[in-house]
Amino acid sequence: MQATIVTIGDEILIGQIIDTNSAWMGTELNLLGINVKEIISISDDHQQIIDTIGRAIQSSDLVLLTGGLGPTKDDITKKAIADYLKVEMEFHEPTWNRIQKFFQQLGRETTPAHKEQCFIPKTAAVLLNKMGTAPGMWFEIGNSILVSMPGVPYEMKYLMTHEVLPKFSQKLGDQHIIHRTILTAGEGESRIAAKLESFENILPNNFKLAYLPNLGMVRLRLTGVGKNKTELEKEIERLKENLVQRIPQLVFGFEKETLAEVVGKLLIERKKKLGAAESCTGGYLSHLITQVPGSSGYFQGAIIAYENSIKENQLGVLVKTLREHGAVSAECVTEMAQGAIKKLNVDMAIAISGIAGPGGGTEEKPVGTIWLAVADRSSVQTNKLTLFKDRLKNIEYTGNVGLNMLRLFLLEAK
Amino acid sequence: MQATIVTIGDEILIGQIIDTNSAWMGTELNLLGINVKEIISISDDHQQIIDTIGRAIQSSDLVLLTGGLGPTKDDITKKAIADYLKVEMEFHEPTWNRIQKFFQQLGRETTPAHKEQCFIPKTAAVLLNKMGTAPGMWFEIGNSILVSMPGVPYEMKYLMTHEVLPKFSQKLGDQHIIHRTILTAGEGESRIAAKLESFENILPNNFKLAYLPNLGMVRLRLTGVGKNKTELEKEIERLKENLVQRIPQLVFGFEKETLAEVVGKLLIERKKKLGAAESCTGGYLSHLITQVPGSSGYFQGAIIAYENSIKENQLGVLVKTLREHGAVSAECVTEMAQGAIKKLNVDMAIAISGIAGPGGGTEEKPVGTIWLAVADRSSVQTNKLTLFKDRLKNIEYTGNVGLNMLRLFLLEAK
Repeated sequence: MQATIVTIGDEILIGQIIDTNSAWMGTELNLLGINVKEIISISDDHQQIIDTIGRAIQSSDLVLLTGGLGPTKDDITKKAIADYLKVEMEFHEPTWNRIQKFFQQLGRETTPAHKEQCFIPKTAAVLLNKMGTAPGMWFEIGNSILVSMPGVPYEMKYLMTHEVLPKFSQKLGDQHIIHRTILTAGEGESRIAAKLESFENILPNNFKLAYLPNLGMVRLRLTGVGKNKTELEKEIERLKENLVQRIPQLVFGFEKETLAEVVGKLLIERKKKLGAAESCTGGYLSHLITQVPGSSGYFQGAIIAYENSIKENQLGVLVKTLREHGAVSAECVTEMAQGAIKKLNVDMAIAISGIAGPGGGTEEKPVGTIWLAVADRSSVQTNKLTLFKDRLKNIEYTGNVGLNMLRLFLLEAK
Repeated sequence: MQATIVTIGDEILIGQIIDTNSAWMGTELNLLGINVKEIISISDDHQQIIDTIGRAIQSSDLVLLTGGLGPTKDDITKKAIADYLKVEMEFHEPTWNRIQKFFQQLGRETTPAHKEQCFIPKTAAVLLNKMGTAPGMWFEIGNSILVSMPGVPYEMKYLMTHEVLPKFSQKLGDQHIIHRTILTAGEGESRIAAKLESFENILPNNFKLAYLPNLGMVRLRLTGVGKNKTELEKEIERLKENLVQRIPQLVFGFEKETLAEVVGKLLIERKKKLGAAESCTGGYLSHLITQVPGSSGYFQGAIIAYENSIKENQLGVLVKTLREHGAVSAECVTEMAQGAIKKLNVDMAIAISGIAGPGGGTEEKPVGTIWLAVADRSSVQTNKLTLFKDRLKNIEYTGNVGLNMLRLFLLEAK
């Protein structure tokens, strides 16, 4: 079964918002074994919407539209659908009742735009959107299905999860696509590719391996296609194990796991409490760690010592160290990590200090020079990075390196 | 002039990576007045690449391909281009010399995959990629232009900025598209739309207004199309001012400004030093603030008090307060903010404590209950939010609300 995803909105084409909906939908459709053939972003343009629906319906079994169903005047998707189908618009009373009730509960008035939302193409089956005012719509067109949803991510996700995916899963054929993702940190794409060359040569024809590098990490994605799902699952597991054995030190996890989750699991296993002392990453590493549900079980807190006086007063970094080695040095991050252990009363801590840019670089320590330290009460490991000119990229890359240092430190500590 | 952007890679279709390249390219093309007609993501599939290039070349003057030029085996874009153009592949000696030099400087060996990268379609004009090994390629096909670039964001951005955009800007016609973006925080899409209804009714036919809501903020985008650039600029400025006058209290900035940048400017103007005390946002607010270049000039640091003992020991929150009101209360965030002012020696501080979820909720304080306080040495303002079930969404939404509280506090303080 083939699907096409269409996102509608000038704001995507002019780059003002990044389309994250399509990636989420792609993941969900794939889990059902539905192959996403194409993702298309087009303008809020009546004729372009009609043309794109026509082309997508011809080449796919399922067409998913998002965007252009909100309560404001730039919403023309449903009118284009009605014109494509050559049907009238009709006022949908149950939707109007639902919207009125929703606003009554909030103690607020509806606006005329909300009434406008209740006009929908006559042949639509309405999908109940409990997360917002715009209804989802389902159309059967010959052997194909067209679904229209609002572009607001949590409304779309609600409709997909509760209405659309359950209906799709009934209609599936017998061709299966499966994926396994192996997550690595610590080496670049080319180095890993060289180590996996002989592995790629033994890959069966119905399998593919893709490299997806991102800020110090490379995801390796194995994809297999076949009719026998059980056999396919067995084969992909065998291949996955074979691959992992070739680069065991680099693999930190699988599928959608994050480095922060892996570090969290190791901390729980080893019953260790973690703290942090961040300078140039300004809270980003702590944010990565605390994105994980349950991180309050092992993460106590952090001191963001952006100013040198806070490094001294809160973390106990010596004035002498700052004077002789500077804030961006092995000595400083070591004292920051040791200071965080004491101050936050934790078993181990990570410390980061560097020049994120764009200003602040010198000849000796250019922008992108960043020091990290991981310490427990008896040992410390430091690491120097020489990164990029881009501030945000330096912050994000360093966050990943820091998490990987924590992982390796915890694995060695046993 | 019309452009189509094509991104190639199964990893996008199965949702494993989010396509951020297209948004960046869309922004840059628009600044030149080039209209992006469509953004298409397709598979690493030889025939689909050929078909998509063919269709895009027919409907656009410019076709930009990204993805599928890396050094690993899943790279088939350039072979598809060669087959589309019906030309041979040729070894490009200068690219090979450049790659060898690059690796010599790093003190590393090239791999056979790097040599593979130097084979390119015969009719390509090579675009020098100083950020990586894969060359960019430029093809003139009748009156249209096809450009192929690596999918790695900083390599693509380098090629666009230094090679592609300068060449495009020479080829422009006389139709102009211009945009103005008005940034708001504090009210939802429907409320703003109701306030702007009469504004929308006076909008000339060649102008459009779009609403782009995101986590507590709504971006309003005005777009105008016309032949006379000077007149268009004058008219859009007039409309922008008219719009802002209708919702002055909600507008925090324009175009690509961020709330964190606006807060930073106010702090510099008012010569105030800021600190933070974060619990449930775990460093995210500090990360937003320190993403801004130069933020070390006004942001001193923060204490991430994830554990209650750190709220007590580092921020001086009273045991009595925690016992009687809990960590998620107006009283606690007030003491956290006041504690941060003392501890970090700053003029003002923001404090946040709440239940981000998914665990930790109670009947009285469900998941999504979050308290914020902004204080200086003489006053304090608190705010309670009742948000969502989603952890990351709660963290991000709260970050924006916190920044907007800081903005309003600074504006009132004068």
